[in-house]
Amino acid sequence: MTRQELVQEIKSKSSYLCIGLDTDLTKIPTYLLNTNNPILEFNKLIIDATKDFCVAYKLNTAFYECHGAEGWNTLHETLNHIPENIFTIADGKRGDIGNTASMYAKAFFENMHFDSATVAPYMGSDAVIPFLEFQDKWVILLALTSNQGGQEIQLTRENGQFLYEKIIRAGNTWGNTNNMMFVIGATHSERMIDARKIAPDNFFLVPGYGAQGGSLKEVSENGLNKDCGLLVSSSRAIIYASNEEDFAEVAGNEAKKVQQEMAEYLQSANII
Amino acid sequence: MTRQELVQEIKSKSSYLCIGLDTDLTKIPTYLLNTNNPILEFNKLIIDATKDFCVAYKLNTAFYECHGAEGWNTLHETLNHIPENIFTIADGKRGDIGNTASMYAKAFFENMHFDSATVAPYMGSDAVIPFLEFQDKWVILLALTSNQGGQEIQLTRENGQFLYEKIIRAGNTWGNTNNMMFVIGATHSERMIDARKIAPDNFFLVPGYGAQGGSLKEVSENGLNKDCGLLVSSSRAIIYASNEEDFAEVAGNEAKKVQQEMAEYLQSANII
Repeated sequence: MTRQELVQEIKSKSSYLCIGLDTDLTKIPTYLLNTNNPILEFNKLIIDATKDFCVAYKLNTAFYECHGAEGWNTLHETLNHIPENIFTIADGKRGDIGNTASMYAKAFFENMHFDSATVAPYMGSDAVIPFLEFQDKWVILLALTSNQGGQEIQLTRENGQFLYEKIIRAGNTWGNTNNMMFVIGATHSERMIDARKIAPDNFFLVPGYGAQGGSLKEVSENGLNKDCGLLVSSSRAIIYASNEEDFAEVAGNEAKKVQQEMAEYLQSANII
Repeated sequence: MTRQELVQEIKSKSSYLCIGLDTDLTKIPTYLLNTNNPILEFNKLIIDATKDFCVAYKLNTAFYECHGAEGWNTLHETLNHIPENIFTIADGKRGDIGNTASMYAKAFFENMHFDSATVAPYMGSDAVIPFLEFQDKWVILLALTSNQGGQEIQLTRENGQFLYEKIIRAGNTWGNTNNMMFVIGATHSERMIDARKIAPDNFFLVPGYGAQGGSLKEVSENGLNKDCGLLVSSSRAIIYASNEEDFAEVAGNEAKKVQQEMAEYLQSANII
């Protein structure tokens, strides 16, 4: 998906919501456990109920890999159920040397048809550039993650510059605003202001909103740019809002509420 | 596998060779392409020919994931073909927040029965500790990788300390010498001396020997400790030494040569 298509989708839905399909057998409604593929069934119902309110789905590969080959098929089939106009994220945080990175990129971009993949920066440019060789595909590079433990590493400071800032700068030399996004956790909204100064035009993927506690208002005030420039991700707060038979309807209502709040921020920022 | 069992295996085989099964359809002998599962067939023949000369096999997950669910099954079946006394490494370089890290750990340690998994440190302790909760399983934490690009990030310097050194120190607060190894690339043998000062007793997994050009002699002189403390990994230089029908025999001979060189270094260091 191109940047232009993504921005168009955001404007037409008045939403920059990304829904994380972190689907866990121990958290889904128990009646689904009697179906042939409970995770796929859950995902399809969630997608059908929320697709008008979000512009992206993020599939955390760990939740599928832990079921082996069957889980890998479920990942594939879930992806196939997502409408084409919605941006898709393979959230695998892969990061390895060149020939291996190419294999991962092929797995996500050729074998499956994700629009983007999250990539870990620890192994440097070699781990990232192979993902950038695919037309209209995106790298979403880990910069400042939402978890507490990430700060031990990401706030390493060299000559007054934090490591996450160094990575944002490096990321924009490896890629550009049409193929490079950065992960900036919602739990660091004040640091988002600093990240915006370094990367005024890139999209940021912002996890940590919802169950992890970041404020959507603050994230939006600090992160929105002229093209929106944000995908704010929520997983548990939406997909597990109910674990009764009405779960999909409740998830749809939760997604709609978030979308309506986002519409306000987009209007205030004169984006729509 | 416990540390004691691993050290015993090293001493009994006079080897600290780890063979990387980075099996690529475009590089294996063409006659295998007519078999039902060429990658599995190749792996089984390589394992049978080399298992007396190595103490570990490292399976790079990217080379299996890029074949989807079928590849995931091949990974599983390859693992099942490795003798129990040989240490196994899931080389996936995963790194994600707590609940996701637990899923990855389950995928590698419960769903499959790897002895260890490579883990990326960028997300800090949250990404690592869930892997340490499994008895007799190991984290192999990326510290200083063999690729050139890794230095851009890993040699970030804070108060005179390189990031990879900070990570080794942190790793030994999260785990200990019985469940925590570090990746130190063979292309930085002089830095291995520094790493040994910080982590005198941990095992190091050393990639970059062979096709990537590091010297086994130098690595061994700088890295061996009283329990050996090294797993030196070679992939392409062994498994693709021939791509004719004799490939397994040739791989076995190559592995034996490396093992014999290792035996000399183990003797010189009074380990055997």
